[in-house]
Amino acid sequence: MNEQYISLAHGNGGRLMRELIDDVFAAYLGNSALDTRADAALVGALHGPLLLSVDGFAVQPLEFPGGNIGSLAVHGTVNDLAVAGAIPRYLTLSAILEEGLEIELLVRAIKALAKAATNAGVSVVAGDTKVVPRGHGGGIYFSVSGVGEQDSGLHLGMHRIQEGDRILVSGSVGDHGTAVLLAREEFGLSGEVESDCGSVLELAQSLSSIEGVHFLRDPTRGGLATVAHEVAVATGHRIRLEESAIPVRDSVRSVCEILGYDPLYLACEGRAVAFVSADIAEKVLYIWQQQAAGSGSAVIGIVEKGDAEVLLQTPIGGVRMLEELEDDPLPRIC
Amino acid sequence: MNEQYISLAHGNGGRLMRELIDDVFAAYLGNSALDTRADAALVGALHGPLLLSVDGFAVQPLEFPGGNIGSLAVHGTVNDLAVAGAIPRYLTLSAILEEGLEIELLVRAIKALAKAATNAGVSVVAGDTKVVPRGHGGGIYFSVSGVGEQDSGLHLGMHRIQEGDRILVSGSVGDHGTAVLLAREEFGLSGEVESDCGSVLELAQSLSSIEGVHFLRDPTRGGLATVAHEVAVATGHRIRLEESAIPVRDSVRSVCEILGYDPLYLACEGRAVAFVSADIAEKVLYIWQQQAAGSGSAVIGIVEKGDAEVLLQTPIGGVRMLEELEDDPLPRIC
Repeated sequence: MNEQYISLAHGNGGRLMRELIDDVFAAYLGNSALDTRADAALVGALHGPLLLSVDGFAVQPLEFPGGNIGSLAVHGTVNDLAVAGAIPRYLTLSAILEEGLEIELLVRAIKALAKAATNAGVSVVAGDTKVVPRGHGGGIYFSVSGVGEQDSGLHLGMHRIQEGDRILVSGSVGDHGTAVLLAREEFGLSGEVESDCGSVLELAQSLSSIEGVHFLRDPTRGGLATVAHEVAVATGHRIRLEESAIPVRDSVRSVCEILGYDPLYLACEGRAVAFVSADIAEKVLYIWQQQAAGSGSAVIGIVEKGDAEVLLQTPIGGVRMLEELEDDPLPRIC
Repeated sequence: MNEQYISLAHGNGGRLMRELIDDVFAAYLGNSALDTRADAALVGALHGPLLLSVDGFAVQPLEFPGGNIGSLAVHGTVNDLAVAGAIPRYLTLSAILEEGLEIELLVRAIKALAKAATNAGVSVVAGDTKVVPRGHGGGIYFSVSGVGEQDSGLHLGMHRIQEGDRILVSGSVGDHGTAVLLAREEFGLSGEVESDCGSVLELAQSLSSIEGVHFLRDPTRGGLATVAHEVAVATGHRIRLEESAIPVRDSVRSVCEILGYDPLYLACEGRAVAFVSADIAEKVLYIWQQQAAGSGSAVIGIVEKGDAEVLLQTPIGGVRMLEELEDDPLPRIC
C-alpha cells in the first residue's frame, strides 16, 4: 500500500480498506481459516465444552519495553483462557484505528501479534477494522476474543480453593505496570524496567493432571492484591500474603517508592497466581521454576480460616490490610 | 451504582469496575454461562465445524432512529454468522468506554443489546470493559465476536455463484446509512428515516435445505454496490443490477439527492443479498416476502458472463458502471 497514515477511507469498506486488510492484517496473520472476503471463518470442530473469553486493549503508549499492544493483546486473551483451564485454539481480532495513525506502527503491532499467536499455538481466524476520526481514539484499540478446548486434566475454580491452600506467583509482580508507566515519560525516570508481557499457557499446562491444583489467575489490572481480594470475597476466607516472599524487582520497587505506588496493585501481563493444596506446593514450585516463564516463582501466601480479607505480613512482624482497589493507580495499562 | 458518569476508575479492576459490571452488564446480559468473576466462560459443546466472526462498532451518534450501538452490535455479528450459513450460539462483548460517558446511555445500549441477543437466540457469555480518558474515545466502542454452528442445510460460498444466478435483496437499501446521517444533525434535515438495523437470521434460515442457494451477504459498509463488486472481483463474472428493481425508500432517495449520496453505496444493517439459481429465484422471493424482515424483497439483478464489473441498468435504457468505493461517503456508520 502507498499510504503512510490511516485515513477514514481505510475503514469504509472500499479499496483502501481492502488494501489495508490484505497488506497488513492478512499478510502477517494469514492462515488457512482466515478468509478476508468471508463474513465468518469456518474452523474445525472442537472437542467437548468450549471456553470463550474476550479482552480489550487500550494501553498507552502503544509500544513499551518488553512488548506492544499487539503482543499484549494475544497474551491477554491466551492467558485468560489458559488460567481457566483451556487450551486456546482460535482468536478473533477487532481493530479500532484512529485517523492519522502511522501505518508502520500498526505493522509492528500486527507482527508482534502474529508472533505471539504462533508461539501460543493459536490462529487469528476472523477480524474487523474500523477507523475513527482523529481525536476519537488512542491510535489503536484491539479487542481479541478467544475460543479454547477444556484441558481435561485441569479442574479449576474459585470454589475449589480450601483453607490451608498455598498461594504461588510465577515471577516478579508489577513489571508491566511499571514499564508502561515509565514509557509514558511523564515522570522523567529512565525506563530500565521491561514488561513481563508473555504467555502463561505453558505454566498452566504443566500443572495438568496434578491433583490439588485448585485455581489459577493472571494478575493483570489491579495486580496481585486484586486477585487476592477477589478470592477472599468469593471464598469467604482470609488470604495472608508474606511480603518478603513476594518477588518484586529492585527497579520496580524504586520507581514505586519514588512515585508512591504499591507494586502489589500494579498489573502483570505474564504471571500466573496459583492456589494449590499445601502438600503439592513445593512440587508446583519446582515445576514452575524449571520453566523460563516461571523461573522467578515463589510461594507467597496461604488461605486461612477467618474473615474475607487480605492481610500482608510485613518483614518486621507487622500486619497490613490490603484494601480493595478504589482509585485507579494507573489507567490504560492493558 | 451511585455514579452518573463513567470515570477512569470504572476500568481499573477495582470496586467501581465491579459495580459497573454487576449493575449494568451482568444485570441485563446475565445467563448461566456468564460468570463475571471468571477469566473465561465455560459453555456447552457445539456440533461439527464452528463458524467464528467478529465486528467492531464505532457508530456516531450512539443512538439513532431504529436502533443504537447495542442493537447494532448484536445484529452486525449475528448477521455475519447468519449469511455465512451458521446458527449463532454465543457472543462475547468488549466495551471501550470514554470517561464522562453518561451511564444511563450505556444502560440503554446494553438493554438493546440484551434484547437483540435474546431475539436472535444467542447468549453473551464473556465480556471485558476498558475506560479511556475523555477525548480518546467515541463514548462507546463495542466489539462483538460470535461463535456459531454450521447449518447443515446451507452450503454457501462465493465460489458457488454461477452465471445466470439471480440476485435478490431482502428490502430497501441505504436506510441505516441515511438514518445515521440524519441523526448527526449536521445537515439540518429532519429525520424521518429509520435504520433497518435488525436480524437476517430468519431470512437465512428460511433458505436452509433449498438446492440452488449459492451465496448470502449482508450489505453493510459500502452498501449493495460493494457486495456486487466483491462478487464480481471474486468470481470474475459481470454483475448486472436493474436500477428500477432495487428498493429504495422515497425519503432515502430524497435525502441522497439533496446531499449527493448514492443509496447503493450506503450501509444497510438488516438486509440480506442472495445469489441463487434462476430456477429458484421466484421461490426464494416468495419465502422472503412472507417474513416481516423480508416483506420488501425483490429480484434486482443477474450474474452474467463478461468482465469482472458491476453494471447498473437505468430505467431509461442506459447503463452505468458502479465503480469500487474510493472515498468514504459516510464514516462511522457501524
